[in-house]
Amino acid sequence: RTGEMAKLTQLIDNEVFRAYATYTTIVLIKMMLMSVITAFFRFRRKAFANPEDVSSFGKGENAKKYLRTDADVERVRRGHLNDLENIVPFLGIGLLYALSGPELSTALLHFRIFAGARIFHTIAYLTPLPQPGRGLSWAVGYVVTISMAYNVLKTGLYL
Amino acid sequence: RTGEMAKLTQLIDNEVFRAYATYTTIVLIKMMLMSVITAFFRFRRKAFANPEDVSSFGKGENAKKYLRTDADVERVRRGHLNDLENIVPFLGIGLLYALSGPELSTALLHFRIFAGARIFHTIAYLTPLPQPGRGLSWAVGYVVTISMAYNVLKTGLYL
Amino acid sequence: RTGEMAKLTQLIDNEVFRAYATYTTIVLIKMMLMSVITAFFRFRRKAFANPEDVSSFGKGENAKKYLRTDADVERVRRGHLNDLENIVPFLGIGLLYALSGPELSTALLHFRIFAGARIFHTIAYLTPLPQPGRGLSWAVGYVVTISMAYNVLKTGLYL
Repeated sequence: RTGEMAKLTQLIDNEVFRAYATYTTIVLIKMMLMSVITAFFRFRRKAFANPEDVSSFGKGENAKKYLRTDADVERVRRGHLNDLENIVPFLGIGLLYALSGPELSTALLHFRIFAGARIFHTIAYLTPLPQPGRGLSWAVGYVVTISMAYNVLKTGLYL
Repeated sequence: RTGEMAKLTQLIDNEVFRAYATYTTIVLIKMMLMSVITAFFRFRRKAFANPEDVSSFGKGENAKKYLRTDADVERVRRGHLNDLENIVPFLGIGLLYALSGPELSTALLHFRIFAGARIFHTIAYLTPLPQPGRGLSWAVGYVVTISMAYNVLKTGLYL
Repeated sequence: RTGEMAKLTQLIDNEVFRAYATYTTIVLIKMMLMSVITAFFRFRRKAFANPEDVSSFGKGENAKKYLRTDADVERVRRGHLNDLENIVPFLGIGLLYALSGPELSTALLHFRIFAGARIFHTIAYLTPLPQPGRGLSWAVGYVVTISMAYNVLKTGLYL
């Protein structure tokens, strides 16, 4: 058993894999923050989706008026869904890229630009900043992911 | 080739990794069940989203009336989206955590609590149970994921 | 360090893992395409979700009229969400399956059918093709994922 454990630990000791682990954890925690921000705006705006969520605000019509959509809540939710749509590909393609043996400096460049672009995307969405700020940050993360995908297929294509 | 295969098999033979594989598969299958439950309610409530889905119910206005939202269908869909928002971070951070060489007992504790919390979350959402049942089960899964993320960054931070 | 790198490279040299890497990258790129198709329809139909996205179309009411939903945009978005709901389980369960030491021919069969089913699903959704085309392609991808999950649990169950 100790031998196997050592081998696994070697994976996390590999610098490219550690960089992948670090930046993936950062962007996933950033994505998880969107849940907390959504909850914050739901309570602040009193805008909920489920009857059981508003029952503590009163009975019948008194509570029902809080079952509504709010522009700020919906904005955070769109940002959260955009994270899912873009961070899921990074999670999968980034892992395969990290395992395909890239140069450490090239890999770091990909991971850092992606994480920076997604953090900026969230700031641009929630502020909101004028376009094309949000659009460009989305595109940067997208292109970085495509670049990693190209490297995975170049290294390991097996159809 | 046989040598490489052996090494891969060793990964699945590692107990922490096997535990991760088991609980990840369980929560992903649970999440996949939400699709079937959505379809069940769509047919039961006759509430569909696409014109081509209702064409067998008749022509023109007869079919169009089934293109509508239904409270129960939307409830299942919210539960499904909440799964995506929370199980995707578990999938990524849990894998990195499993590869960071944690104690088996500590790892099992994380995986079991997360899986239990998400199963309870679905039950609380679909029943629905009064709050704060659903909210607490969401928070428990969230804290477990943050705890794993902290361990990943503590073990392997590489910025 | 060189030794560790070699070991990682061996992972991407393993044929089952390379097949997983290839088909996962393909379905994730296919999913990423949905973002571009959504943007295409948003501009073509002039149907946007955020005030800052329409500010270049004019001021006040002139711009506000483009803050609306459009049937085709919503259709692409439903296809995108369906991808997330189904490709995320494939990403996780497929990785564990690839690491569980399956026969190369069996693994290829799973990966190829899944990728084919999801590509057909998108075509069926966007055309749209009459049902049950889309429903069947969804079911095929679903069953393939369950089959891989069964193999993961059979090989590595650790509760």
